[in-house]
Amino acid sequence: MATQTQTILPSYIQGQWWTPENPQNVAEVMDASTGETVARVSTDGLDISAAIEFGRTVGQTSLGEYTIHERALKLKEIAQYLTEHKQALYDVSYLTGGTLKDHFFDVDGGIGTLFTFSSKGRRELPNANVIVDGTVEQLSKDGSFLGEHLYSRMPGVAVQINAFNFPVWGFLEKFAPSFLAGMPTIVKPATPTGYVTEACVRLMVDSGILPEGSLQLISGSARDLLDHLDYRDHVAFTGSAGTAQTLRNHDKVINGGIRFTAETDSLNAAILGPDATPDTPEFDAFVKAVFVEITSKAGQKCTAIRRVIVPQDRVEDVVSAVAERVQQRVVIGDPRAEGVTMGALASKEQQSEVRKAVERLVGAGGTVRLGGPDASTGDADASAGAFFPVTILSFDDPLTPEVHFVEAFGPVTSVIGYTDIEDAVRLAALGGGSLVATVCTNDGPTAARFAAGISAHHGRLHYLNRQDAKTSTGHGSPMPHLIHGGPGRAGGGEELGGVRGVKHYMQRTAIQGPPDILTAITGVWHRGAAAETVTRESVENGTGVHPFRKSLEDLRIGDQFASELRTVTLEDIGDFAGKTGDTFYAHTDEEAATANPFFPRRVAHGYLLVSWAAGLFVDPAPGPVLANYGLENLRFITPVTYDDAIRVTLTAKQITPRVTDEYGEVCWDAILHNQNDEIVATYDVLTLVAKTWPPA
Amino acid sequence: MATQTQTILPSYIQGQWWTPENPQNVAEVMDASTGETVARVSTDGLDISAAIEFGRTVGQTSLGEYTIHERALKLKEIAQYLTEHKQALYDVSYLTGGTLKDHFFDVDGGIGTLFTFSSKGRRELPNANVIVDGTVEQLSKDGSFLGEHLYSRMPGVAVQINAFNFPVWGFLEKFAPSFLAGMPTIVKPATPTGYVTEACVRLMVDSGILPEGSLQLISGSARDLLDHLDYRDHVAFTGSAGTAQTLRNHDKVINGGIRFTAETDSLNAAILGPDATPDTPEFDAFVKAVFVEITSKAGQKCTAIRRVIVPQDRVEDVVSAVAERVQQRVVIGDPRAEGVTMGALASKEQQSEVRKAVERLVGAGGTVRLGGPDASTGDADASAGAFFPVTILSFDDPLTPEVHFVEAFGPVTSVIGYTDIEDAVRLAALGGGSLVATVCTNDGPTAARFAAGISAHHGRLHYLNRQDAKTSTGHGSPMPHLIHGGPGRAGGGEELGGVRGVKHYMQRTAIQGPPDILTAITGVWHRGAAAETVTRESVENGTGVHPFRKSLEDLRIGDQFASELRTVTLEDIGDFAGKTGDTFYAHTDEEAATANPFFPRRVAHGYLLVSWAAGLFVDPAPGPVLANYGLENLRFITPVTYDDAIRVTLTAKQITPRVTDEYGEVCWDAILHNQNDEIVATYDVLTLVAKTWPPA
Repeated sequence: MATQTQTILPSYIQGQWWTPENPQNVAEVMDASTGETVARVSTDGLDISAAIEFGRTVGQTSLGEYTIHERALKLKEIAQYLTEHKQALYDVSYLTGGTLKDHFFDVDGGIGTLFTFSSKGRRELPNANVIVDGTVEQLSKDGSFLGEHLYSRMPGVAVQINAFNFPVWGFLEKFAPSFLAGMPTIVKPATPTGYVTEACVRLMVDSGILPEGSLQLISGSARDLLDHLDYRDHVAFTGSAGTAQTLRNHDKVINGGIRFTAETDSLNAAILGPDATPDTPEFDAFVKAVFVEITSKAGQKCTAIRRVIVPQDRVEDVVSAVAERVQQRVVIGDPRAEGVTMGALASKEQQSEVRKAVERLVGAGGTVRLGGPDASTGDADASAGAFFPVTILSFDDPLTPEVHFVEAFGPVTSVIGYTDIEDAVRLAALGGGSLVATVCTNDGPTAARFAAGISAHHGRLHYLNRQDAKTSTGHGSPMPHLIHGGPGRAGGGEELGGVRGVKHYMQRTAIQGPPDILTAITGVWHRGAAAETVTRESVENGTGVHPFRKSLEDLRIGDQFASELRTVTLEDIGDFAGKTGDTFYAHTDEEAATANPFFPRRVAHGYLLVSWAAGLFVDPAPGPVLANYGLENLRFITPVTYDDAIRVTLTAKQITPRVTDEYGEVCWDAILHNQNDEIVATYDVLTLVAKTWPPA
Repeated sequence: MATQTQTILPSYIQGQWWTPENPQNVAEVMDASTGETVARVSTDGLDISAAIEFGRTVGQTSLGEYTIHERALKLKEIAQYLTEHKQALYDVSYLTGGTLKDHFFDVDGGIGTLFTFSSKGRRELPNANVIVDGTVEQLSKDGSFLGEHLYSRMPGVAVQINAFNFPVWGFLEKFAPSFLAGMPTIVKPATPTGYVTEACVRLMVDSGILPEGSLQLISGSARDLLDHLDYRDHVAFTGSAGTAQTLRNHDKVINGGIRFTAETDSLNAAILGPDATPDTPEFDAFVKAVFVEITSKAGQKCTAIRRVIVPQDRVEDVVSAVAERVQQRVVIGDPRAEGVTMGALASKEQQSEVRKAVERLVGAGGTVRLGGPDASTGDADASAGAFFPVTILSFDDPLTPEVHFVEAFGPVTSVIGYTDIEDAVRLAALGGGSLVATVCTNDGPTAARFAAGISAHHGRLHYLNRQDAKTSTGHGSPMPHLIHGGPGRAGGGEELGGVRGVKHYMQRTAIQGPPDILTAITGVWHRGAAAETVTRESVENGTGVHPFRKSLEDLRIGDQFASELRTVTLEDIGDFAGKTGDTFYAHTDEEAATANPFFPRRVAHGYLLVSWAAGLFVDPAPGPVLANYGLENLRFITPVTYDDAIRVTLTAKQITPRVTDEYGEVCWDAILHNQNDEIVATYDVLTLVAKTWPPA
């Protein structure tokens, strides 16, 4: 354990806990608030190459034995296990200098990400090992040659190189999507807080839920890690722009084809809209957001607000409002102590870095409006612990380059003024690409002008006004549902974003071939592929089984019911109009219908067609088909006028058994033809079907 | 013009044709078949920085004045203009050594890509300047805080650095998606065939269709080009893995955040399935595919088949069948000469490179089975022109490393044998990532095993069998609908893929905020945003206008109709069952319905609900709403049993005027509630609405 300073912090490699036998290179890690040694770290003699090979073989194989939904369920089980044991993670997290509130972001935020990915994986992805992307492209007129896109997991390992500020969340937010995709993870946390990640990995290993080889941990240096990777592998880095640069320069990234993605701290902005004057709720929300972002985690967040961009004549209002809030609410100290609201920076090195950055900003023309390198940290001893005062700077010249590129990675922010929206857009862009910007405005057109101007420079835009001030999840909190990352200075990467994040760990491949082959590869039936067809007649004479009589045990994609023709009369159309109230002229007024550019004369309602189709394909008796829960992609192709007839062909297209229920989703391809075999309509019918019938 | 050898081939910069005044560094370009000088190339004194700035300012502004659909229409107009003038492109293309058939791939293929993107842009993207990605995420319980993803164009220039082998297609396949996205292009063709690109750009400029600054051409060297770019810009490179490496090493790529993508030649494979014995149509299709890929463009395609992977005991069959076809069909010579079926390589340098590569393959253990470095090229004089004989090698040891990484970029291929499917999968992966692989099999499970094994190593998989042998567009032809590119050796990039390709030139940004703000930014109405509501009563008493009475001139997103409640009786349900034939037990059998886990007792048909909803919201008289052409995203949330009542709220959600018709698409948000204000169903209704009413 991290607090046993005599032993080396273990790594978890090839399914075993590992420590070096006789380490020469050992790093000492200190409690951020007290300076006491809390861990010793070394990877002397660790066989990284073997760890990678273990992931690529054992990890890939064991993860491949599960479907996406099964892996999603495991994520939920892991999240539940961690929830039960999260006090242990809080306890060890205090050593990093963070407060309990900070731990919520890291620990609960990380666990929440697992829950969200578990839920999204099961709701939004197929219960399979590949993901079809987009629609089928018909590449030949006769439909014998199709094209489609398929995501399949990358065949290597997913390496994480993480930052010190979120040892749990930073690990789990990358683990969740790569695990769902089916890629084994090797996590290398930052040394200053790696003992928290170690504690989290230990819990996950102890849970017994992880498939073999799906997770490995390198506690300490992993200098030659990238040397062993290639295009099969994924490396996700979070940390400083400088380290990202070093990694991006690696031969295996440039020439070896490693999929490298980086999320780096950036000079994120908060912009106060021209309408958000001090008497508005927007102004209050703005001040609170700036306050939260510079004090939570003592400002050690990649997403923290470093540039406060406000109308020129509001600079003083904003500086004093934020400063007042800081003075009222911030008590710096050991996060374990009663009443402390802001802890220490993660290490003495960080304290020194932040001091240097503030000095540089001051040297460039910044005026200290609160705090500053030499200001008091109250009762907290800034020589023993890595404490730093909340610091607000203002700049007369908003174009001062340092404001836009020097990052003080602590409780520090700079306030600058803008003249008009175009000027604010220009100032925001000087950050050279950011993770996130907050815009406070209650005016739609202003919001749209800002979006048009700055969205391409940002990974996320956060709009705050009176409507969402209470419900917003905040400027600084990446949500698992939304992408995290940003262009330029922010690293150019993209993480999370719900199921988008899973696809980062998969290769998108175009597949071309005939319908039967695409069906075999994707597990989704394609129009034109072989089908097992039954008719009302074959069902009635016992030579065929209606697909609605098959539970998921028996139902196969390609099981098809083809109905007889049914003629639509003018009376049917009039009757449907009368009963439903849908007396639209195309159904009721011969002259007006004929004048319509799309209709030959009075036509049947589209709703009549799909209702009748259900009547034509249904097998009415109780059986494994439990409910029709929806319909997708309905398109009316050829109008049906009176005395035309329609028939429907219904084919089991995709079968998604639920991992937590006694039923699953079946998507049916429905196609309506008329008496001339022209296509009348196409759509997908969504049903719930029992796994067994009668129920087990 | 390219044939005027005294002048320098012009560049097109800042809206003007430009040639250096007194060039010192001039490259001579030769006719590939005759060795005669056909062009002189120099960029001495070209102000590349000014060109970039021109694109970022004038180009961005002028493209931004059009919507995606308007730009798509321009692509079609350009394609039509080029079609009218394509003979001029054929004429100049002969100088590159290619045959008329080769020109079809380059010239017609390029023009076809413009047509496809024009059509897809208008069918699959909004008529707007931003693209919403995916669904809305509700991030607060009360719906006041939402998240969504938005693509907006990148604010810089799209630079193309192209290969010599497809001077038209290689240019237009990148131009089409970047133009659609709204990014100005700077194209730098390869010097050996840059005069063909110049001819194409000249036609496009002469057409008068291009917005100012949307296209610039650098004819010749552009060494410091990347120095001036940053994270706002996109660089798409096609060419050798070596050059890709140099570019990827550039400081502005590593540290400057340039979005860099590469598509490089790779060691693409064709795999003969175990079932495809010589008596099968698959075997014939395989031999033809290999033949086409090594002879078309004299094998100078990034996608050409370099590795022919066949069952061990089929190596001889395949070698002799391909060799026989070559001997019967290939006549090498000046492509302008009668009867010639294969032209020259693009240059003497290429001829020398290919010879060296073949010698290296032979040195590694390859046996020349046809052709070879010293074989005859028939009547074609290989000392004057860059001719090279079709060369087939075979290797006893399929693991010979050179087979898998030495590329002879000419009419050259290697045949190796495999023992079983797992072995074939391993051999295919030794290419280290490829653009494309062809698999010939008529067996679904075999196709699926290959897909599972090799898809993550490839950008495209092409399945060939008796079903699509006649209709396949071929192994070597990237389709605009499908992605082009591949991992590892293939460069790690992705191009094309229909509208996926457009998004490569856009930044995906997460947007968080209240519904009104998301509505203002996206131009798409979000549930919870302000609406202009009318009711049956307000319409009848003249205080409201039914949205169905508004043409696109008057209709605004947020225009809403809220119906009264209508009660569903048991008789209604029975009547609907009788009339439609949908007598599913949930609607007709009280006992069985009650036993169903999802229903309280007999319930109304989902189709009844949506049919009635149409009756509740419709305005029946002739008017601007012309037709209901479909329905999307229908989900039944709460069952409706007899004596429940439903009401519908219909809101104009997205308005897409067509650029080529007198109407447009209107997507309506429909939500059904019951008498307890519970949500019964939600869906989108798709209609066509006239731009003016009465029609202009």
